[in-house]
Amino acid sequence: MSEAALTLEGWYALHDFRSLDWTAWTAADDEERAVALEELNAFIGEWAGVEEAKTGSSALYSIVGQKADLVMMHLRESLEELNRLETAFNKTAFAAFTTKAYSYVSIVELSNYNSGEGGGDPMANPHVAARLKPILPKAAHICFYPMNKKRELADNWYMLDMEKRKELMYSHGLIGRGYAGKVKQIITGSVGFDDWEWGVTLFAEDALQFKKLVYEMRFDEVSARYGEFGPFYVGNLLTPESFDEMLKV
Amino acid sequence: MSEAALTLEGWYALHDFRSLDWTAWTAADDEERAVALEELNAFIGEWAGVEEAKTGSSALYSIVGQKADLVMMHLRESLEELNRLETAFNKTAFAAFTTKAYSYVSIVELSNYNSGEGGGDPMANPHVAARLKPILPKAAHICFYPMNKKRELADNWYMLDMEKRKELMYSHGLIGRGYAGKVKQIITGSVGFDDWEWGVTLFAEDALQFKKLVYEMRFDEVSARYGEFGPFYVGNLLTPESFDEMLKV
Amino acid sequence: MSEAALTLEGWYALHDFRSLDWTAWTAADDEERAVALEELNAFIGEWAGVEEAKTGSSALYSIVGQKADLVMMHLRESLEELNRLETAFNKTAFAAFTTKAYSYVSIVELSNYNSGEGGGDPMANPHVAARLKPILPKAAHICFYPMNKKRELADNWYMLDMEKRKELMYSHGLIGRGYAGKVKQIITGSVGFDDWEWGVTLFAEDALQFKKLVYEMRFDEVSARYGEFGPFYVGNLLTPESFDEMLKV
Amino acid sequence: MSEAALTLEGWYALHDFRSLDWTAWTAADDEERAVALEELNAFIGEWAGVEEAKTGSSALYSIVGQKADLVMMHLRESLEELNRLETAFNKTAFAAFTTKAYSYVSIVELSNYNSGEGGGDPMANPHVAARLKPILPKAAHICFYPMNKKRELADNWYMLDMEKRKELMYSHGLIGRGYAGKVKQIITGSVGFDDWEWGVTLFAEDALQFKKLVYEMRFDEVSARYGEFGPFYVGNLLTPESFDEMLKV
Amino acid sequence: MSEAALTLEGWYALHDFRSLDWTAWTAADDEERAVALEELNAFIGEWAGVEEAKTGSSALYSIVGQKADLVMMHLRESLEELNRLETAFNKTAFAAFTTKAYSYVSIVELSNYNSGEGGGDPMANPHVAARLKPILPKAAHICFYPMNKKRELADNWYMLDMEKRKELMYSHGLIGRGYAGKVKQIITGSVGFDDWEWGVTLFAEDALQFKKLVYEMRFDEVSARYGEFGPFYVGNLLTPESFDEMLKV
Repeated sequence: MSEAALTLEGWYALHDFRSLDWTAWTAADDEERAVALEELNAFIGEWAGVEEAKTGSSALYSIVGQKADLVMMHLRESLEELNRLETAFNKTAFAAFTTKAYSYVSIVELSNYNSGEGGGDPMANPHVAARLKPILPKAAHICFYPMNKKRELADNWYMLDMEKRKELMYSHGLIGRGYAGKVKQIITGSVGFDDWEWGVTLFAEDALQFKKLVYEMRFDEVSARYGEFGPFYVGNLLTPESFDEMLKV
Repeated sequence: MSEAALTLEGWYALHDFRSLDWTAWTAADDEERAVALEELNAFIGEWAGVEEAKTGSSALYSIVGQKADLVMMHLRESLEELNRLETAFNKTAFAAFTTKAYSYVSIVELSNYNSGEGGGDPMANPHVAARLKPILPKAAHICFYPMNKKRELADNWYMLDMEKRKELMYSHGLIGRGYAGKVKQIITGSVGFDDWEWGVTLFAEDALQFKKLVYEMRFDEVSARYGEFGPFYVGNLLTPESFDEMLKV
Repeated sequence: MSEAALTLEGWYALHDFRSLDWTAWTAADDEERAVALEELNAFIGEWAGVEEAKTGSSALYSIVGQKADLVMMHLRESLEELNRLETAFNKTAFAAFTTKAYSYVSIVELSNYNSGEGGGDPMANPHVAARLKPILPKAAHICFYPMNKKRELADNWYMLDMEKRKELMYSHGLIGRGYAGKVKQIITGSVGFDDWEWGVTLFAEDALQFKKLVYEMRFDEVSARYGEFGPFYVGNLLTPESFDEMLKV
Repeated sequence: MSEAALTLEGWYALHDFRSLDWTAWTAADDEERAVALEELNAFIGEWAGVEEAKTGSSALYSIVGQKADLVMMHLRESLEELNRLETAFNKTAFAAFTTKAYSYVSIVELSNYNSGEGGGDPMANPHVAARLKPILPKAAHICFYPMNKKRELADNWYMLDMEKRKELMYSHGLIGRGYAGKVKQIITGSVGFDDWEWGVTLFAEDALQFKKLVYEMRFDEVSARYGEFGPFYVGNLLTPESFDEMLKV
Repeated sequence: MSEAALTLEGWYALHDFRSLDWTAWTAADDEERAVALEELNAFIGEWAGVEEAKTGSSALYSIVGQKADLVMMHLRESLEELNRLETAFNKTAFAAFTTKAYSYVSIVELSNYNSGEGGGDPMANPHVAARLKPILPKAAHICFYPMNKKRELADNWYMLDMEKRKELMYSHGLIGRGYAGKVKQIITGSVGFDDWEWGVTLFAEDALQFKKLVYEMRFDEVSARYGEFGPFYVGNLLTPESFDEMLKV
């Protein structure tokens, strides 16, 4: 039997980070900006219907620092849907005022390290189903980073046997549980889809909790010996009001 | 005698990833776009004849995320043919609306780890010949990534003897066989041609199978200890209809 | 109990490095430059009020070498404030003459390795509070670099127990104390916020003291075995006069 | 006595990789292209005289894939000559249709690992002299890659004694000799000149021999344990006819 | 007592590498080029006075290959002086025809590994003073590279005790002395100033001596086990005549 952990997958995910071309944006005339905003709002306006239809969920956050100005996080039922969303955005007049900053392709995932071992179809469990097809929270802050499990000589996660990995993931999970109510975490798997093995998206009302959680986990053996981390992005919820404020010239 | 595995080679391969300049594309007038599409379609239109003549095969997929918008994968009989294809595309009016995103040069390869040990000319075997000069499937999804076998202190694939490598590749191959009918895999060798040692191109109707396959393999010693992976690209089949939809402004 | 060191956090920090587009700047006419400078000065002019209100602090330095021309370092009470500052700068006419060079998002931090072990609320200690919400010095020179604690096989900071880390940090701190009065150091934590774990910002009247301090520390086990360093930026204080001189065409 | 291998050096080498700006090239009018080609042909036209005068040699190949469109490889008697060639190319009208893609600075080298141990001046040996100042072959294909000898803990080439290195290089050389008549190899040293320690330029009528040779060598201890490889470039000979074909719009 | 080597520091150093925008340069009209050259010559013309006043030294070399077209190396008494030089160059009309290629900030350094152990103030020694504030030679060739001492598990320079480092540096220095009269070496320290720990600038009449020296040193334990090398730049002296020749269209 395979040593790989069984995983359950839900919606596909696209994190689409964009930078604004502020020089072009401030140089545009009022009408150009009005058209751009109208097309942008039409694009964003469709997200509510998707959530209602339970066929996906989207969120919009600003990003602090120069890596990007905003991120659109999309959960949808297929890669084709995600591709259509990208392309639809790219065709808006607003997109011409943006440049690509970073993107990440993955799929919402639950690993059986966390799940109960009792029999039965886990998808029949409404809690599991809700975690695989989650409505993205509208928390004040977002944090995203991709990561790998290391394969470096003596520190090779993939050469550990299932029992050992289960044990390590259990204590790792305890730290996460300590942040229940403070940080909401969505794990997306990206093996075969993007350059790292997982994406981690965190949501919190208090951004400091991201630091507390990630720092505490770093001392846990799963992260300390086996975690390899990519770039970190942190940002603030864009409400219609705050987005309007941000783009007002 | 050399410790290197014997390999059989077939068609040369070029993966040609391109991004669209959406701002220029949407800003162009109808006639400019019409000319660009006409030249693009003429370029694509030649691929069918090549497949009929059994002198090569080409496929066209979109790419999800910002790394690229599309990939043209070409198999042809020589590096000169691949060069001519690139150049022909670059001269089309459509190419002026694209930018280079990534490319990979390799050659379809079968290694003798997999082949039977019985004597005889393997190329006389029609199954082998078909695998070396394959017609690319029109599956719903594509996945591409380049990879190396590691040479890092105690984890050095190239210092293993042939028997050990054969044994490891055998169990590695078993995983792949478990996905027969779900994932079609084309291995291309790129030692001496590009920056990694192999390219792996996967085709599947269900993109989730890419993740399942690559994740399961990662626990296999060949990947766990000896695999080193480059960027991953995943995408959707572009049919004339879906490509038209994608480019419609 | 968690093995992670307890940390105290104060103001959020944004280091915003920018390059000047000298060709555009010298090609602009006097009026364009005057408008740009007026908007820039209005932007900078707000910093004094923030310091007076004790809701943050900002500093402005030039950077030597091609990595950037200047850095704006901002301390504020929230990520939203930092985001607003970035956006406000981006909307100035001056920003159109700059390009993004580098940025860093973090939060002023004190770790309990340094703090006394006596009970009581450390925030009630005015010295601690002053270090968590510091007014940035107007020293002649600045030095900034991000860093990690290493996790590489036998050299894994996060696998050390608390006692060992405390002991190592104690002797590390002694070196820093030897530079009291010569170098002022602000440590900002960035786990969960940016690509490295900490940012280090140093201020000194004599830039040579940066080299002396960092070099001496490099022989200390904390840095020698466990330090991993990112890019270094060094620069000179921009007073209204020297900034004016720098931008005069 | 020094443990470094003695080396003999011949002509300096510049590999000058360029990409074409196809959009500008196809958008230019016939006269602009004619002027550009005339200046390009004048530049190339001088190479024959240099070869006749035995003061250098140059070759022109296309490159397959997006890394570059063509490479000019120049061997000349001094760095000043190479600099003059670069500059002369940069001043042609054709150069304005190209962008820099990659370059490599090195010097043709023979190491004493390969040479006989008998006394006498090796430069007096006409075979040695011919290898140090070679006329570049006009083979159908070129392959270029830079490389290092590793210095990683237990795998440290430079900590081996001369006897061991000699022994390893001897068996390494045997593989190369097995490709005599199929692959012509020019080794250029670049310690102190460019970012890797050596450049390897291979020429062959059958490009597949590059893969066979480099793959077979990778199992040899010199490469397996001690080789570190940079980017690979592969291409096709540009004859006046094929270059004309490539540039024809 | 600290285990760090004591160092003596002299002038601050800026290596300022620039690329020419040859397309813009050749497209400019004679008058634009004349103005640009006039401003450039005025900028360069000030260097002689600085050398006479013994307040610094500057040198100008071309760079071979695509990494840059030229390097201006400046030694001055402060970071403010270096910043002023950069800015003054950036404001010239010539600078608009250049792009940034690379830069390095450091300070001329002598380490006590090399210095005599006798007492007394080393700065009172005119030989030491001359090495800390050197007039840059006008040798035919320059070579620059930045480097680190490694901190990788068992190969950790900074965990060696002073005696061991002194012993290793002594034999390392012997190699350098073997090139006396052939290669002039200026070591600049950059801990706290730039991304590597040291910059090495070599000057020679015969560029081949760079290769001989660096290659021989690579077998010395200091480099073999502990050296980590950045990019290498090599170039030719730009005299008024050769610079004129280079820029003539």
